[in-house]
Amino acid sequence: MAQEVMIEAIPNFSEGRRNEVIDAIVAAMDLCGVLLLDRSSDPDHNRSVVTIAGPPDAVVEALFRGVREAATQIDLFRHRGAHPRLGATDVVPLVPIYNTTLADCVALARGLGQRIGEELGLPVYLYEAAALRPERQSLADVRSGEFEGLLRDIHLPERQPDFGPAKIGSAGAVIVGARPSLIAYNVFLKSGDVTIAKRIARAIRERNGGLPGVRALGLLVGGQAQVSMNLIDFRRTPVHVAVEAIRAEAARSGVEVERSELIGLIPQDALFAAAAHYLQLPNFESSQVVEIAIEQSIAHSTSHPLGSST
Amino acid sequence: MAQEVMIEAIPNFSEGRRNEVIDAIVAAMDLCGVLLLDRSSDPDHNRSVVTIAGPPDAVVEALFRGVREAATQIDLFRHRGAHPRLGATDVVPLVPIYNTTLADCVALARGLGQRIGEELGLPVYLYEAAALRPERQSLADVRSGEFEGLLRDIHLPERQPDFGPAKIGSAGAVIVGARPSLIAYNVFLKSGDVTIAKRIARAIRERNGGLPGVRALGLLVGGQAQVSMNLIDFRRTPVHVAVEAIRAEAARSGVEVERSELIGLIPQDALFAAAAHYLQLPNFESSQVVEIAIEQSIAHSTSHPLGSST
Repeated sequence: MAQEVMIEAIPNFSEGRRNEVIDAIVAAMDLCGVLLLDRSSDPDHNRSVVTIAGPPDAVVEALFRGVREAATQIDLFRHRGAHPRLGATDVVPLVPIYNTTLADCVALARGLGQRIGEELGLPVYLYEAAALRPERQSLADVRSGEFEGLLRDIHLPERQPDFGPAKIGSAGAVIVGARPSLIAYNVFLKSGDVTIAKRIARAIRERNGGLPGVRALGLLVGGQAQVSMNLIDFRRTPVHVAVEAIRAEAARSGVEVERSELIGLIPQDALFAAAAHYLQLPNFESSQVVEIAIEQSIAHSTSHPLGSST
Repeated sequence: MAQEVMIEAIPNFSEGRRNEVIDAIVAAMDLCGVLLLDRSSDPDHNRSVVTIAGPPDAVVEALFRGVREAATQIDLFRHRGAHPRLGATDVVPLVPIYNTTLADCVALARGLGQRIGEELGLPVYLYEAAALRPERQSLADVRSGEFEGLLRDIHLPERQPDFGPAKIGSAGAVIVGARPSLIAYNVFLKSGDVTIAKRIARAIRERNGGLPGVRALGLLVGGQAQVSMNLIDFRRTPVHVAVEAIRAEAARSGVEVERSELIGLIPQDALFAAAAHYLQLPNFESSQVVEIAIEQSIAHSTSHPLGSST
């Protein structure tokens, strides 16, 4: 597996309620060689996050087909949900996994964006590492004003798409980019007061001087205050550090954390680091995990067969 | 890998200081087909724990050779250490991993014990699931009085070995058995008072009415109080539950936990469970871990190749 060339992609679709629509989009992406790693839908966000992985060309083809299907199935004029969005396929990040680089994913993202613009006639914005304009690196900036704002402003020079026409229909616009692996993590508060979640989000997010690599929004989800985070570099700000920061900020408002949830996938090292932190295991190494020790030992014995008693 | 027949064994040798001795014992066990998963030595315990895995016959042969080597290298009349012991090879548990049962390991342990008794002339006691007498199921009972006590009492009927002669030399006796997988976990207190560690151990261990599947000893290690545990069923008493119980008991003596350490290996599910507990992730599933999702998806796509758009 480690010898393969593999990228991951996590397309976010603006449908989290109608299962038949999500099924149709996922079926459109189901290509030979593409692994469907995860699929999670949130009716409050009215959004689905699909995680796929595989060889770069196969993943890009699967994404193109998913975007095409979503554009026919989802009508932004009728879409309501807690999560901000610009389009039917709202955002498509490409992530290097095995034997690929962020630069490879930038090139793939730009190629995919161009094809979506030209063949599907949708406005496309490139973001993060794939951005062509510095002011489009931040996803929050690209998505500012959401679908409704873009409908009004797409004719303005600063909102000119990177690919495709400067006009917008029921499928909205597609944001395509490349970034390192991230963890999407939501923390629910024992409170229905969204202003507390928004204050906490401001306190912890990097762009307001908070924790490195943390993006955060305060949302109201099913009547409950939620801090919705992206941890873009869990080795700089581990999950447990972000959660403890939220607990401390919430305590300042007299509020407790009720529970958390993962959206999509998390690297095993992020969970091992959290366990080692709370269990106070300063010398923990992943080679102490049975399953990893067996895999490493098999890999080693395959490359260096053991002799007897040497 | 999951198709293979594999057992694990974790022989404990009474040498944790002289590296050349441990090297010689490990080299004696280095057979084709046997994976060396872990090796950890503790100079205070004066003890080394080696974890090997592989096909049953190869593992048993490696164990026999390790026991034979340890008997020539280690002199119990000169051995001092914080950890109780009966012999040069103190205890040899066999553990089922893939496609084997505890009953298989019982049969293997009894066969190994008989061979050690007959070919090496060492007294052998069978314990845990392999015990031939109910009063020998508990390792603590078998090891009661340690080497020095056995030297005095081996002629008594109740100390008659299960295999080998009822006489004891510099290699002491060997305890062989079979058990389910366990986690060996030590918690250091910010205290040099071993009576606190002993009180905590009594409070949390199963045999004194504490936590199910928890064995615990209070020790003094390098001048520091330590609660040394075996968690024999981490699904009944998870690591984080045992650690929290120790923290609460320590707090009653006004003492804090300084750090913990793993001896040998831990199953990934035990760490995932600890992370999910402390991060408050009630709906966590291991399929949300990137590495596991990729493996499961590859296994699935190998058995059921994906068609296009079905």
